[in-house]
Amino acid sequence: MKAGEVFMTHRGVIKHDDIIGQPWGVRLESHSGHPFFVLQPGITDLVQAIKRTTQIMYPKDIGYIVLKLGIGPGKRVLECGGGSGGLTTVLAFLTGDTGRVYSYERNPEVQQLARKNLRLLGLDQQVEFKLGDASDGFEERYLDAIFLDLPNPYDYLEQVSPSLKGGGQFATLLPTMNQVELTLRALAHSNFAFIDVCEILLRHYKSDWGRLRPVDRMVAHTGYLIFARSIQASLDGLEKDEGDKETDD
Amino acid sequence: MKAGEVFMTHRGVIKHDDIIGQPWGVRLESHSGHPFFVLQPGITDLVQAIKRTTQIMYPKDIGYIVLKLGIGPGKRVLECGGGSGGLTTVLAFLTGDTGRVYSYERNPEVQQLARKNLRLLGLDQQVEFKLGDASDGFEERYLDAIFLDLPNPYDYLEQVSPSLKGGGQFATLLPTMNQVELTLRALAHSNFAFIDVCEILLRHYKSDWGRLRPVDRMVAHTGYLIFARSIQASLDGLEKDEGDKETDD
Amino acid sequence: MKAGEVFMTHRGVIKHDDIIGQPWGVRLESHSGHPFFVLQPGITDLVQAIKRTTQIMYPKDIGYIVLKLGIGPGKRVLECGGGSGGLTTVLAFLTGDTGRVYSYERNPEVQQLARKNLRLLGLDQQVEFKLGDASDGFEERYLDAIFLDLPNPYDYLEQVSPSLKGGGQFATLLPTMNQVELTLRALAHSNFAFIDVCEILLRHYKSDWGRLRPVDRMVAHTGYLIFARSIQASLDGLEKDEGDKETDD
Amino acid sequence: MKAGEVFMTHRGVIKHDDIIGQPWGVRLESHSGHPFFVLQPGITDLVQAIKRTTQIMYPKDIGYIVLKLGIGPGKRVLECGGGSGGLTTVLAFLTGDTGRVYSYERNPEVQQLARKNLRLLGLDQQVEFKLGDASDGFEERYLDAIFLDLPNPYDYLEQVSPSLKGGGQFATLLPTMNQVELTLRALAHSNFAFIDVCEILLRHYKSDWGRLRPVDRMVAHTGYLIFARSIQASLDGLEKDEGDKETDD
Repeated sequence: MKAGEVFMTHRGVIKHDDIIGQPWGVRLESHSGHPFFVLQPGITDLVQAIKRTTQIMYPKDIGYIVLKLGIGPGKRVLECGGGSGGLTTVLAFLTGDTGRVYSYERNPEVQQLARKNLRLLGLDQQVEFKLGDASDGFEERYLDAIFLDLPNPYDYLEQVSPSLKGGGQFATLLPTMNQVELTLRALAHSNFAFIDVCEILLRHYKSDWGRLRPVDRMVAHTGYLIFARSIQASLDGLEKDEGDKETDD
Repeated sequence: MKAGEVFMTHRGVIKHDDIIGQPWGVRLESHSGHPFFVLQPGITDLVQAIKRTTQIMYPKDIGYIVLKLGIGPGKRVLECGGGSGGLTTVLAFLTGDTGRVYSYERNPEVQQLARKNLRLLGLDQQVEFKLGDASDGFEERYLDAIFLDLPNPYDYLEQVSPSLKGGGQFATLLPTMNQVELTLRALAHSNFAFIDVCEILLRHYKSDWGRLRPVDRMVAHTGYLIFARSIQASLDGLEKDEGDKETDD
Repeated sequence: MKAGEVFMTHRGVIKHDDIIGQPWGVRLESHSGHPFFVLQPGITDLVQAIKRTTQIMYPKDIGYIVLKLGIGPGKRVLECGGGSGGLTTVLAFLTGDTGRVYSYERNPEVQQLARKNLRLLGLDQQVEFKLGDASDGFEERYLDAIFLDLPNPYDYLEQVSPSLKGGGQFATLLPTMNQVELTLRALAHSNFAFIDVCEILLRHYKSDWGRLRPVDRMVAHTGYLIFARSIQASLDGLEKDEGDKETDD
Repeated sequence: MKAGEVFMTHRGVIKHDDIIGQPWGVRLESHSGHPFFVLQPGITDLVQAIKRTTQIMYPKDIGYIVLKLGIGPGKRVLECGGGSGGLTTVLAFLTGDTGRVYSYERNPEVQQLARKNLRLLGLDQQVEFKLGDASDGFEERYLDAIFLDLPNPYDYLEQVSPSLKGGGQFATLLPTMNQVELTLRALAHSNFAFIDVCEILLRHYKSDWGRLRPVDRMVAHTGYLIFARSIQASLDGLEKDEGDKETDD
């Protein structure tokens, strides 16, 4: 937002000078008389506005993931395959000054973009960016949660396990059923239990109260979510499946 | 957890003495040899475990709501119709020491239960419990977000508006389309914009990798979510509907 | 298909002469070597290929409607608001030589298009096209089923009732919840019982077996389906709702 | 329905004598004054009422399958793994006197039950029941459609192909993604094209117009549907996938 500049839209032009110094929520008009509102971006706006080179994660998935992983002030969480920083942004926002986000990424350019995105949002101080590949394992220990945003998380469960605290939460998001199959197979032979596989569908409605109905089209699929918790010992004889439960948690 | 007591399950008996002092994630065995794990409860476990007299909110909805409302460390949020404290728990957890939750409820007994539930979880210091009815309005000003868990939120938009900061987030969850219709109608004549109506469906899968498929039955409906943002002035001539957008946010 | 003409596609040109006389299922090649197959159109292909001026009905809805209405050989069924003939085509195909379709439409031009579409498919002999408005009622009696494809079916239940046989099936498809509300209210004061309201969602999957997943986007909404059966007498004291049932029929 | 007998329900007793001779749709009262209606069962009622030893197929799936397969008067259709006769009933009803249903089943007792069920409904004359295993192939040729209700349809595509007419429709319904994967892989190396994979979700609504909302719980999964059409020659170089299309057909 710079003095003297203008913001051009298909509903008219607005001067930056008219915006600077105004309170959030104020109503302005463009040169053509269309109303505009000055609103502070929400965290979901930020996630979707960041520049990216990789597949975006959707708020419908992010909201459920961070709640299931128990992300909040003071928590220490690691992500690998951080991409452009969409999930990183939410993790950094939620863990706050007292928590910590460790963001591994093996592509330096992608990580540079994530770092820049987080700095723009004033959240980069919460994040420790690390260049590195999941196959080399992670330096951190006793983490509250780990999220792998990789096509083959099933190859890295042995790297994940020692970095989680006992009972720590593991999660991943996978676009295809073939990946889900391989991940479940790997989890069945690992130190994880309470495995949960699910998918979330979000359906928007038109907001015309006289013609209440869903919008015509929707996102049919983003990915399957898998959650599991780290346990100490082998699982011989344990019924690990809690996915059969018909209840909605 | 008391020394000398036992925990009885359909898979055998476990002594509290065997659990006390153990690290999270440890593997124990019941007297009958079944394995058990000592895990710290996650926030979703806590929400679902609390005693309640009222309708529960589901994690699938809570996760999306708190993300859309931008709830995190330092935020100030108000809920009205707090019930037994399910959402209150998550709000208190997320806003942390630097934020604040204002929880209005008109039924003293229900509020007493919520207070007790939050105390058990060590989260009651973050919450200001207030006995009161939405019709009397709220004392707080410049709040980041307000969530109404009431059957008739459409009656209280005038009370909500002055308590929100400019651009502050409003949300509600309603089981029926009739309530959605009335709320959208009220929002159309109020100081709110960026109205969004949606519903979230969660489908669990069985975790048997050799027989990958969704579970047989699922929750078909919890409620419709409505979001809107507070704006300063009247909306004459403004296209307020952004619900028509086909994109998934 | 005319001798001497050609069929141009983005994968090359095919001569009509190469197709005429070939058996169904044969494999041809375009001038550029791309393979093409000569396939008899299925009924769902026909429904979607007909010229239309009005909103199309989707196979996902048509399939369920005709099964619930019990449409088959020998049945007598009436539709009102026939439009361009999409549903009419399926009804005519299913009722066959021994059944009968009565298709009411008040717009002569729209009906002319439907008539032409049915003739092209060789199905027009099964259909009695009638110009007329639902408010004037229907001449037929003892019909097996009636489908109203009108925005306000709730205004015409008194016209529907005397044309159905005892226990005859009524159905309608409505895009908005406001219409559903009005229709259910009208049905509650009419000679109908066994009311059922539902919606059908169809999700396509990519057919790549190595990357099994749903397609990215889907149709989120076509309409709500309402079914009811005609009964003789008033319903004082009868529990008419069977929509509460959780079972899937 | 036998003279002198009674029908006992939790809303009172009804004498068969009161029902015999009454027209469809008539309103009776039980001895306790509760209203009852005498209605002719619809085809969906029949499918769900038949005695069965095997997994039932749901109307939501049956309706879409028969429409996609183009089943109607005069068509010749084969099913294998007929089970207790649920789908057989609908196929026999729809193909009528001029069509033919060939129902293969390798378990004589299960087939005996199907035969009995069809006889009760007066539809057994339309069906040719055949004891036999898919691996031995089918005697029929130039069929319009074949439906395999078997756990491993991917093993029998070579048996299916020669029995279908050119362009004939093949379909199957499979509960797990692992089966879908194997079937798609087999189809990719067979004389089939226009492969379509999908699933259908049915959501019921409560019929209380003052409290419009979906029911609380629903069927989350019955099975994945796969459709394909028989073609003459090999498919080298052909883009067979039409599942990528985002359109709803």
